[in-house]
Amino acid sequence: MPSFRAPVADSLFLLNDVFRMQDHGDLPGYAEASPDIVAAVLEEAAKLAEEQLQPLNLPGDQEGCRRNEDGSVTAPKGFKAAFDAYAGGGWIGLPFDPEYGGQGLPYALSVATAEYFIAANVAFSMYPGLTAGAVAALLTHGSDALKRLYAPKMLEGRWTGTMNLTEPHCGTDLGLLKSKAIRRADGSFAITGQKIFISAGEHDLAENIVHLVLARIEGAPAGVKGISLFLVPKFLPEASGEVGARNTVSCGSIEHKMGIHANSTCVMNFDGAVGWLVGEENRGLNAMFVMMNEARLMVGLQGLAVSEAAYQNALAYARERLQGRALTGAKNPDKPADPLLVHPDIRRTLLEIRTINEAGRALAYWAALQSDIAHRSADAKARETAADLLALLTPVIKGVLSDRGFDNCVKAQQVFGGHGYIVEWGMEQFVRDARIAMIYEGANGIQALDLVGRKLPANGGRAIMALLGEIGGYIKAKDSDAALKPLLGPLSASLGHLQQATLWLMQNAATTPDNAGAAANDYMHLMGLVVMGYLWARMAEAAFADADPAHAGLVAGKKACATHYVQRVLPETALRLARIASGAANVVDLPAELF
Amino acid sequence: MPSFRAPVADSLFLLNDVFRMQDHGDLPGYAEASPDIVAAVLEEAAKLAEEQLQPLNLPGDQEGCRRNEDGSVTAPKGFKAAFDAYAGGGWIGLPFDPEYGGQGLPYALSVATAEYFIAANVAFSMYPGLTAGAVAALLTHGSDALKRLYAPKMLEGRWTGTMNLTEPHCGTDLGLLKSKAIRRADGSFAITGQKIFISAGEHDLAENIVHLVLARIEGAPAGVKGISLFLVPKFLPEASGEVGARNTVSCGSIEHKMGIHANSTCVMNFDGAVGWLVGEENRGLNAMFVMMNEARLMVGLQGLAVSEAAYQNALAYARERLQGRALTGAKNPDKPADPLLVHPDIRRTLLEIRTINEAGRALAYWAALQSDIAHRSADAKARETAADLLALLTPVIKGVLSDRGFDNCVKAQQVFGGHGYIVEWGMEQFVRDARIAMIYEGANGIQALDLVGRKLPANGGRAIMALLGEIGGYIKAKDSDAALKPLLGPLSASLGHLQQATLWLMQNAATTPDNAGAAANDYMHLMGLVVMGYLWARMAEAAFADADPAHAGLVAGKKACATHYVQRVLPETALRLARIASGAANVVDLPAELF
Repeated sequence: MPSFRAPVADSLFLLNDVFRMQDHGDLPGYAEASPDIVAAVLEEAAKLAEEQLQPLNLPGDQEGCRRNEDGSVTAPKGFKAAFDAYAGGGWIGLPFDPEYGGQGLPYALSVATAEYFIAANVAFSMYPGLTAGAVAALLTHGSDALKRLYAPKMLEGRWTGTMNLTEPHCGTDLGLLKSKAIRRADGSFAITGQKIFISAGEHDLAENIVHLVLARIEGAPAGVKGISLFLVPKFLPEASGEVGARNTVSCGSIEHKMGIHANSTCVMNFDGAVGWLVGEENRGLNAMFVMMNEARLMVGLQGLAVSEAAYQNALAYARERLQGRALTGAKNPDKPADPLLVHPDIRRTLLEIRTINEAGRALAYWAALQSDIAHRSADAKARETAADLLALLTPVIKGVLSDRGFDNCVKAQQVFGGHGYIVEWGMEQFVRDARIAMIYEGANGIQALDLVGRKLPANGGRAIMALLGEIGGYIKAKDSDAALKPLLGPLSASLGHLQQATLWLMQNAATTPDNAGAAANDYMHLMGLVVMGYLWARMAEAAFADADPAHAGLVAGKKACATHYVQRVLPETALRLARIASGAANVVDLPAELF
Repeated sequence: MPSFRAPVADSLFLLNDVFRMQDHGDLPGYAEASPDIVAAVLEEAAKLAEEQLQPLNLPGDQEGCRRNEDGSVTAPKGFKAAFDAYAGGGWIGLPFDPEYGGQGLPYALSVATAEYFIAANVAFSMYPGLTAGAVAALLTHGSDALKRLYAPKMLEGRWTGTMNLTEPHCGTDLGLLKSKAIRRADGSFAITGQKIFISAGEHDLAENIVHLVLARIEGAPAGVKGISLFLVPKFLPEASGEVGARNTVSCGSIEHKMGIHANSTCVMNFDGAVGWLVGEENRGLNAMFVMMNEARLMVGLQGLAVSEAAYQNALAYARERLQGRALTGAKNPDKPADPLLVHPDIRRTLLEIRTINEAGRALAYWAALQSDIAHRSADAKARETAADLLALLTPVIKGVLSDRGFDNCVKAQQVFGGHGYIVEWGMEQFVRDARIAMIYEGANGIQALDLVGRKLPANGGRAIMALLGEIGGYIKAKDSDAALKPLLGPLSASLGHLQQATLWLMQNAATTPDNAGAAANDYMHLMGLVVMGYLWARMAEAAFADADPAHAGLVAGKKACATHYVQRVLPETALRLARIASGAANVVDLPAELF
């Protein structure tokens, strides 16, 4: 049976020593998040993740969700009680406005706890995760009436949320969507259509389910400019706010999937279901993007979180499993063999996973801090800068952390040899569960196109220029720091690769858009590598400044991981640049029939 | 439902135009393998693979194998009939000595057919594949009596074979194995012990199962020098050669696995089972290595084959699925959207899979040709050179083709977006099935150590020097070929990286063995990249020499793939070299407790 311990010490290191939350006391919620409160919140989250969610992970995968004859869906055993504990702990509302029942704490802190919950049980974490995302969209774009009626119950976990975008003939290309909304006399709408791949679309964890649904109001323009967003509850609320009549939305079937078996992936049928407009007519995608952007951060976090769980189990196996002898002579002469951990190739594998995980965690927290600044700062310029960076980093976090997280799970599974392929050991579940993160909330190819096609050119390249400037400025500022020198040299070279690639895109993509398409994936990974390299330098700087002997282990670990990163991960930027600069010609010139 | 078409045209291109089987008429079996015979054999294999094996692939995965209360195992529906057709077609014996019922045809031809069978149904193909491997070991090391009694029935497919190495406490480290053999009065042995992860260990496809089992004769030395190989049949043959009494070997349970559900992976219990020594006492590993080396080639082929099947389905989906518009304007203006195949990122993905597949196929055939020369040539020097190359390439084929094949399956699955995650579409099965190839027959970390620790230094580095010489000589010889120039420049640079890495290992691994361990995986991939680059140059050369207008499509495809390879795959050699040259220090210095 796999196990999991939440990486609380690393979270505290990042929040306190690297990103210095205490320096952001001007942001609402940050003053309340004193170091001892932060530590207490993280410890509580760890307890819930380790003791209640993780034990349900393997059995939940085995049992899966069951759709009953009446269209109801039963989640695996124990999920309802775990969800009640999760909701009861106030975890859904942690970063939300107290006006709607939230706790108003930093989103950065919420992201830290989310990683623990996801690592413990990715399928479970999607139920509350989607609920939080739906509330975020509602609070940004919903009417006051909708906000007051729905948000508090959702933050309490009495009602959960979903996002309904995909239809059988359209996933990425939402302009094709056919679901219809017909205006009713009372100002509500009747929604009709079929949605597929709806995570948590139907289940027995909550008394109501609130669907956010994209549909086209009759007479609306074709394409993405005629799409509106609607709130469609499973049960229509009474005047009292309690659930009333059943709405005409139902789960037609659930999918058989590679993984995340314990989360119900539903075909949802809307048969004139009553719904209310969220945001403006025909601006539904805009409203849904609030939920999507938050979901994309969470999906990137999934890649990281499952990878962290996989790492911990691979490490435990490498310590316990006795097989072979160290190349330098027996390390365990009294036993029949040495532990796997003596072998350099196993150590290399583990360090590769860990160095990505720790950089990925830093990246997720850094983005969450930008989100807090963008949403809470009183300084308009600071808000703009943070929003720019967050928008730029969102596709990178989603695409790179999910790609790398999946690769890491495969590497961790490999440490187990044959046992890695056997269900009971739990490693193959990590691989199957991590796989979805590369696909949903916009497949990673779409993330890459979003980055090069929208985020780079936005506002004349303001965001990318700021990012390049920040990293370049950091390298210059730390130039005389001897301890950081072995890291900053390689980082500087890789930053140069990112600059060259950006310039190449500016020069070659405007006239020949295919050059952007053929380069997108590599550019996304190149940016991810450089940003994680920058964050490794900042983590190393913070660790090296820590003279507390009690932290010597953390410091040595950070040093080894940072070194591993610049020696063995960061050199990949040259490869990415070479691929980008090779251009689109060979890729697009081959006639379709010759593939 | 996924589909599959055997790549017969590519096989013929490789066998006839690149490796020129017709120039090896001196090798027994090659004269018989005239171009029309080769084409006919490949067409027959394609028919069997496409029409009988492939339709069982998805249902076989769903149904899986069932162990019954009496310890018997039932393979999925249709497998018995398919196995009878396979055996009846003489496919198991294709490359074997006619004296034992084989057809004596080239092993290279057998490898080509094996790819089709595996691509159609990897779980199925393991039953005959292991049988062929067991016969190869038996014919090399078995006594005449054993060979005459067992080999013909196994080549007919009336009896199947298995390999029994792993025990619960030892996989890689066979020196730890505990299974015991006690000498019986009649010269046979009584074998007692438990083996795990035994593929095809029990099933209902054949009337008898012949286990090749590693065990320790009482009084034998400890470690690997005390291991002997035994043949242990499920049913003891009567004097007539027909099956008689049941032997005391049985299947205790079958594993729940990530994939290859239709192949039974058994715990086998030997309770004083009667067995006969194969080869010399205490030289069992040596005898088993005949089977293991053949199995390693087959496992590399699995990576390639599943990747080929995955590619074909991703391509079909990319042609059919309408989603989004080309960056350069609508290609399909009458339809609501363009096919996925217009998008450069999809084309890039497909070309990346295909260029590895076609190079991997060339590599497998090239190795098979070396095997034929090593086993059949009358020229001792030619045999030695071919055996050197085969030994060097075996871990590369196993490790690189399985790693790359799995990655390719993941890429192909990604083309399907959300549908890639849904069981019914079949793409996630390719990923799950391909995953095992990286693990079994020696996990890929072990392949890499075999390469740097055994194969490189063997005979004073004779094999690697010959390989470097061959590729360098080829580049020099083709120096003035203008059409090949764009390929040979990058190949020359990458060959330089392989030379530098080899030199680095010679200088740094002897004194500090950890440097070999930490470099092994990257070195294996570096060699694979360079060898595949060399084979791309040879394929391009052969294609460019083909002026037949009917082959224009093949030629253009080869040119695009070769170009893609040198532009976007081969530059990875610089990254591999940088990783190798970073050395082991940082990897091995971190104390175990700080991981």
